[in-house]
Amino acid sequence: MNEEKFLELLNEKKFKDVRSALQAMNTVDIADVLSDLDDKELIQAFRLIEKSKAADVFSEMSNSMQAYLVEMFTEKELKDILDDLYMDDTVDLLEDLPANLVTRILEHVDSNKRTQINTILNYPEDSTGSIMTTEYVNLKKHTTVEGALAHIKKTGIHKETIYTCYVLENRKLIGIVTAKELMTMDSDMTMEELMTTEFLSVTTHTDQEETAKLFSKYGFLAIPVVDRQGFMVGIVTVDDAMDVMLDETTEDMELMSTLNPSETSYFETSVLTHAKNRIGWLMFLMLSAMITQTIIAKYENAFAALPLLVSFIPMLTDTGGNCGSQSSTLIIRGIALDEIQFKDIFKIMFREFRIAVLVGLALSITNGIYIMIRYKNPMIALLVGISLIATILMAKIIGSILPLFAKKLHLDPAIMAAPLITTIVDAGSILVYFNVATKLLNLA
Amino acid sequence: MNEEKFLELLNEKKFKDVRSALQAMNTVDIADVLSDLDDKELIQAFRLIEKSKAADVFSEMSNSMQAYLVEMFTEKELKDILDDLYMDDTVDLLEDLPANLVTRILEHVDSNKRTQINTILNYPEDSTGSIMTTEYVNLKKHTTVEGALAHIKKTGIHKETIYTCYVLENRKLIGIVTAKELMTMDSDMTMEELMTTEFLSVTTHTDQEETAKLFSKYGFLAIPVVDRQGFMVGIVTVDDAMDVMLDETTEDMELMSTLNPSETSYFETSVLTHAKNRIGWLMFLMLSAMITQTIIAKYENAFAALPLLVSFIPMLTDTGGNCGSQSSTLIIRGIALDEIQFKDIFKIMFREFRIAVLVGLALSITNGIYIMIRYKNPMIALLVGISLIATILMAKIIGSILPLFAKKLHLDPAIMAAPLITTIVDAGSILVYFNVATKLLNLA
Repeated sequence: MNEEKFLELLNEKKFKDVRSALQAMNTVDIADVLSDLDDKELIQAFRLIEKSKAADVFSEMSNSMQAYLVEMFTEKELKDILDDLYMDDTVDLLEDLPANLVTRILEHVDSNKRTQINTILNYPEDSTGSIMTTEYVNLKKHTTVEGALAHIKKTGIHKETIYTCYVLENRKLIGIVTAKELMTMDSDMTMEELMTTEFLSVTTHTDQEETAKLFSKYGFLAIPVVDRQGFMVGIVTVDDAMDVMLDETTEDMELMSTLNPSETSYFETSVLTHAKNRIGWLMFLMLSAMITQTIIAKYENAFAALPLLVSFIPMLTDTGGNCGSQSSTLIIRGIALDEIQFKDIFKIMFREFRIAVLVGLALSITNGIYIMIRYKNPMIALLVGISLIATILMAKIIGSILPLFAKKLHLDPAIMAAPLITTIVDAGSILVYFNVATKLLNLA
Repeated sequence: MNEEKFLELLNEKKFKDVRSALQAMNTVDIADVLSDLDDKELIQAFRLIEKSKAADVFSEMSNSMQAYLVEMFTEKELKDILDDLYMDDTVDLLEDLPANLVTRILEHVDSNKRTQINTILNYPEDSTGSIMTTEYVNLKKHTTVEGALAHIKKTGIHKETIYTCYVLENRKLIGIVTAKELMTMDSDMTMEELMTTEFLSVTTHTDQEETAKLFSKYGFLAIPVVDRQGFMVGIVTVDDAMDVMLDETTEDMELMSTLNPSETSYFETSVLTHAKNRIGWLMFLMLSAMITQTIIAKYENAFAALPLLVSFIPMLTDTGGNCGSQSSTLIIRGIALDEIQFKDIFKIMFREFRIAVLVGLALSITNGIYIMIRYKNPMIALLVGISLIATILMAKIIGSILPLFAKKLHLDPAIMAAPLITTIVDAGSILVYFNVATKLLNLA
């Protein structure tokens, strides 16, 4: 079913066809198609979705669509949706709704669920608690495989995942059993015999990025979450972990490009917010560039005597920036993937030193040939060559160690990326360039 | 069990303790610990792993460890591991082994499996075929839930995932049933009644990045893969999709920092390879910077008359680079997340234009204040201000549209990132700067 056809059916009020079209679509695609409708069409179309799918479609929608629907829902519609919504999606919904709608929703959930919602809403924004859900399958250690399967058959539909089951004793997690084991093992085995007792868990206060990393490292489908007292309170599922991974990567890329990370997508962010997100770092770096400016101003005599010198400045600073960017990106990414630790710092410096020498020689020689052909001036070729090698050395060393220090100081290594390093290396390379120039060419 | 304790036990030849330590650890952690051993210890320790875990641990190891083990294995050990290894892991193994070991392995698999291996090895490197596995649960449409569960109980252990089951007819996929449905629905329902017939599938030649995106969009645990004739040939599971996502993100970040993407991690890559991966773009950009160099050289008279002019060049070009980087990063990431399409180009240009005006004014005013305080020269403040605004406008427009054109031309948008844009914008901003300077300050 393509979108145009769908809109046509809706406009022609062929509701029966719309309904069967919706039946054939999956929930993500339905949310996609609905996002193109105007408000009136939206509530109309939403009411045509079969009941078993409605909550799933609702949870895939944007906040503005959700807010509109909550406002339009009858009491019964709202209650039905809320009953079917998983805890993590309920919390997501509440986090972004205007206060009057939040009140409306909280009136429709029972006091037990309301307490749970409030607990989750109170977890810090980037914590695992804020992305977990509280619906999971819990089993007792004396339950048999047969008993467990019967339990799942009765209650499983309302759990976000039934593929990892948790064996609890006094609210504490003592073991994990997978649905695969339940489906393939003898029906009279007990959970105690079957369960894995060496399992990983995270706490409600674990950084959500750390939790997400465990999924890619271990290939989990879900991970249990315990509170500070060690009681099991929920699970995080792989789909939510994937969302966190994508968001954190976007955030890293934004930080690396001097952007304040934005919660919303490009088009959802207003021009003014875009400008605000960009100005901070630009301003800081522009003011930092005044150091380089001051240095250059000091060497007026040098380039008044030999104006050609000036023309190589951008090539020199750009190359420094690019070299620093290469090193810092590799280190930042290596830290993010847990491949690089602070203790590797000397190993890294030695590597970057050797790489810088190789790269520096290659670039200096190429550049020397260019200058000889074009300006036939061996002294300038030598000067630019020396400055290039020095710049590349500085850029690679600074670019590789700053992210490591950031990590050590519990800052996000991504802020130590190309732009900051460029600004630092600029000053250094200009200093080298004019110092060598004055000596080599007797310009003082 | 921490690593040191483990190594201690191994060195003291307390093999019984080592064995029970290994029993308590999960396969990823075992592979981690083993990676610190030298060759002799490695084979010794590997032989202490319980048989049911050995293949899983093996598949988590690095290529060099795998190669060493394959060389050391007895015929029986090799056969046992190969029998337990999933198809995707077998193919991964073969892709990186030296030829003599590949031959050794192929001698130990039956001809049917060998044909499958050869087919998968022939799929292009970034294709979905190259990451799929061929072990999945297939069912017939008249099978009942009870029959399906019995089938899974018998065969499921050797399938990479049993949580999504595939209903086939004449080798073609006609529907999908989840384990959740099998576990919660009436036991006499047939697959035909239960199955979803509207499902997504990919082909063996679909780009693996496209396939991985479907996982994050739809929250799949597995996706079916069909060949060009429409026959079902395998599945991709969520853990492999996550690996692809991480690799593709790393590749994007590397491209954005003028690095040739590397298949290996920072420390696994030799200094020479690092240098090679970095030199290409640096060289290209350095030579491109000669254009800026030529432009500057033409304005010798201008800065011979007013040397202070020179000192603002790095600030100007750096700001241009940073502004371009901000825009290109947002667009590159937006394209990667399918939030931005080529058809949005005019909308984007208009947004970036407005953002550039706001950012440009803020920076120009700040900079003007600095110049007035420090040099008390309103003409230079005006000159730098105008140049800044022009530079920021150029940077934001060029930075935002180049990735879109790259996408249109089926290139990776990530190559149109900060470094290339910096080099282009440099030339433009220098031209504006000196042109305005000569006119404003009568320097011609």
